Amino acid sequence: MTGDPTDAPSESPDLTCYRCGRTASFPDRKRCECGEPLWFDTDGAAVGFEWPDSERSGQRGEVGPGVWRYADLLPVGHPGGVAAAAGATPLVRVPDLDEGCRLHLKDESENPTGSFKDRGSAVGAAWASAAGREWVGTVSHGNMAISVAANAAGTGPDGPDALVLVPDDISGERLAAIAQYDPAVLRMAGDYGRLYYDALDADAPVEFVNSDTPLRVAGQKTAALELCEAFASEASASRQTGASTPAPDAIVLPVSSGGHASATWKALRELRAAGLLAEADLPRLYLVQAAACDPIAAAYRRGADEVTATSDAEDTVAYSIANADPPSGTRALAAALETGGAVLSVPDGEILDAKADLAADAGFCVEPASATTLAGVRRLSERGELAPDDDVVAVLTGTGFRELDADGAKPDTVALDDLSERLRALTG
Amino acid sequence: MTGDPTDAPSESPDLTCYRCGRTASFPDRKRCECGEPLWFDTDGAAVGFEWPDSERSGQRGEVGPGVWRYADLLPVGHPGGVAAAAGATPLVRVPDLDEGCRLHLKDESENPTGSFKDRGSAVGAAWASAAGREWVGTVSHGNMAISVAANAAGTGPDGPDALVLVPDDISGERLAAIAQYDPAVLRMAGDYGRLYYDALDADAPVEFVNSDTPLRVAGQKTAALELCEAFASEASASRQTGASTPAPDAIVLPVSSGGHASATWKALRELRAAGLLAEADLPRLYLVQAAACDPIAAAYRRGADEVTATSDAEDTVAYSIANADPPSGTRALAAALETGGAVLSVPDGEILDAKADLAADAGFCVEPASATTLAGVRRLSERGELAPDDDVVAVLTGTGFRELDADGAKPDTVALDDLSERLRALTG
Repeated sequence: MTGDPTDAPSESPDLTCYRCGRTASFPDRKRCECGEPLWFDTDGAAVGFEWPDSERSGQRGEVGPGVWRYADLLPVGHPGGVAAAAGATPLVRVPDLDEGCRLHLKDESENPTGSFKDRGSAVGAAWASAAGREWVGTVSHGNMAISVAANAAGTGPDGPDALVLVPDDISGERLAAIAQYDPAVLRMAGDYGRLYYDALDADAPVEFVNSDTPLRVAGQKTAALELCEAFASEASASRQTGASTPAPDAIVLPVSSGGHASATWKALRELRAAGLLAEADLPRLYLVQAAACDPIAAAYRRGADEVTATSDAEDTVAYSIANADPPSGTRALAAALETGGAVLSVPDGEILDAKADLAADAGFCVEPASATTLAGVRRLSERGELAPDDDVVAVLTGTGFRELDADGAKPDTVALDDLSERLRALTG
Repeated sequence: MTGDPTDAPSESPDLTCYRCGRTASFPDRKRCECGEPLWFDTDGAAVGFEWPDSERSGQRGEVGPGVWRYADLLPVGHPGGVAAAAGATPLVRVPDLDEGCRLHLKDESENPTGSFKDRGSAVGAAWASAAGREWVGTVSHGNMAISVAANAAGTGPDGPDALVLVPDDISGERLAAIAQYDPAVLRMAGDYGRLYYDALDADAPVEFVNSDTPLRVAGQKTAALELCEAFASEASASRQTGASTPAPDAIVLPVSSGGHASATWKALRELRAAGLLAEADLPRLYLVQAAACDPIAAAYRRGADEVTATSDAEDTVAYSIANADPPSGTRALAAALETGGAVLSVPDGEILDAKADLAADAGFCVEPASATTLAGVRRLSERGELAPDDDVVAVLTGTGFRELDADGAKPDTVALDDLSERLRALTG
């Protein structure tokens, strides 16, 4: 609650490549020589990991909330400020949306800036602050840009400033959402996809926390740790009834760069290493793309084990996951394949239907990218990939409150004196 | 986590008037014969109350998250759906915003619909659902309208529908935010302030959960229970150092109708009844209004014990707390007076400065109404009402992401090939 002074980051934590096994030192590298993204090698630390409330833990005050509850598996300890508020999002059962399975929603919009990005930005800003860095950067014009700017602001005057690289044609609304935190902003002309790599390679003292960099993946994995802990806790409490499972049967995520999917996979691998998840209980990862731009799903369909850029991407309502050349696409594909899941794509019409249903039937206002999960669940159920007693968690990645369409129909006007009469007519 | 089927509401829970002591039965009445608002008389239940993690609690799975953690003090038990996601918001220390005290922020924007209103709406919708009601209503065109519509949607097809009474001139953006949840919406012509009372008195089967009704106050008090529990937990963990206090020294809230202030006061009274807060440790309640519309602060200034409507209200940036005739104004005033706090008002310029500082110096994007708290803390410090070692909690009531101003300056454009050079110039 009170935010201790930030712990010093660990000495040169090791990075490893999920694919070829090469290692490297952070922060010198973010990507492997083989071309794939690196992540922190925390499997060793995970071997001794137990859920923080277990008897091994010290006093309650020692376990931080949200993201920092899992500090033993992170490259930096508890920060103060807005980074301390990341994570600890609700997981709720929504029986009215069941479609051939038992559906749960993990509402990541209940993060400080309204999206799942706060978990990785919090770890990135906390690490940069503890390491004495003056700048933390990102390549984004959406949720991630807002989140990095906010979390850098939260490190205070002695912490790093934020640098946000946005596309030249960014809208005024998005710019305002980013600029309120007073970061440095540069509009970039040229290939925005290439900028992702150029920023990481730039010869400048800016710690870029792009969508699948090691710090971001480390922070992001805590969402999966949280949801697995919720299931484990429930199972532990109701062991005598045998009604619950120690983990969900499936986790369904939107996928764009592949960083979120990578982080979820990493969390499951760590829990397996810790002995907290048996191989047979590992959830299947289902990744969903918009059909208009689905390079990872296309690779899955053709049975490939590498993702290549798509050249025929079209516009989609789920613009925030429209990445034609995903930097962690191949790692995300591996996550789906190795957990027995799948990658699928859904058309815009089904995404919009799912978004409307999440609001009107369950009370959740999400951006279209998040609604791909429910659309995906529906497709998976139709295909018979989900069983009626499967516990399936759909991750709602971001709020829909930043993009409301004002062009609706106007309701009737009623005179105040006619209120009771009108209410009886309505309810009668 | 999974949301048990909703418990049945208790039989005719008793209501009491904080002022004259009269009692009444819920849901027959919402206001006392003396004219003041009624609330649930939970002091008796509170006598045996202990923090849910204490040894008296059963298994972990029996204690719900957020609002439902305090189900022993609520008129209805754990619901499923979006109502289960209300509460459990972060409390973070923000040393960079300290102004003559130790400042903490309780970020209520991290609720399902982005405001503190979800706590009361969740309890209202859950109660109406458990009681078999077909309609739950509210008089609002802002956060409360969105929240009631969402929480009613979350009760599913068997639960109550929402009815939202909005002013005739509501904007398209606000209407869209409400309409996404598919409630019945009526635009009301006439005195919107009077509508508050007319709705409660309407002869129609709609359970109105207006801003200070018993169900809303019951749900809303959980925010104060949460923040007091966080302090108590910290104090318990660090008892040997003596560094922490069992409660904050002061809580600072925006005040509009007075329902939120009433709920906070109610929580403190219950904790006192439970023996969890000694009289000497009760936080002082400071309530802040915008100077342009400040009937409660005006009553405080003139030493009155009743609030009367203001006839000279002007527009303010903090529009969501601009209530010229607050239905719980007198109760809110009593809360400030009896806890040794105060009611103050702050001009729009200071509200906007505070809003900008909350974003740029701490990473929190709030609506102007929420920023009145920081502006108020600054005034209180100047007056010498806060001490440097006072732990002060400012409650951030709602997100600023629904009202971003797109008219900012455009940053420079940089060619991709000039990236490294430009970054070195920026960071050098």
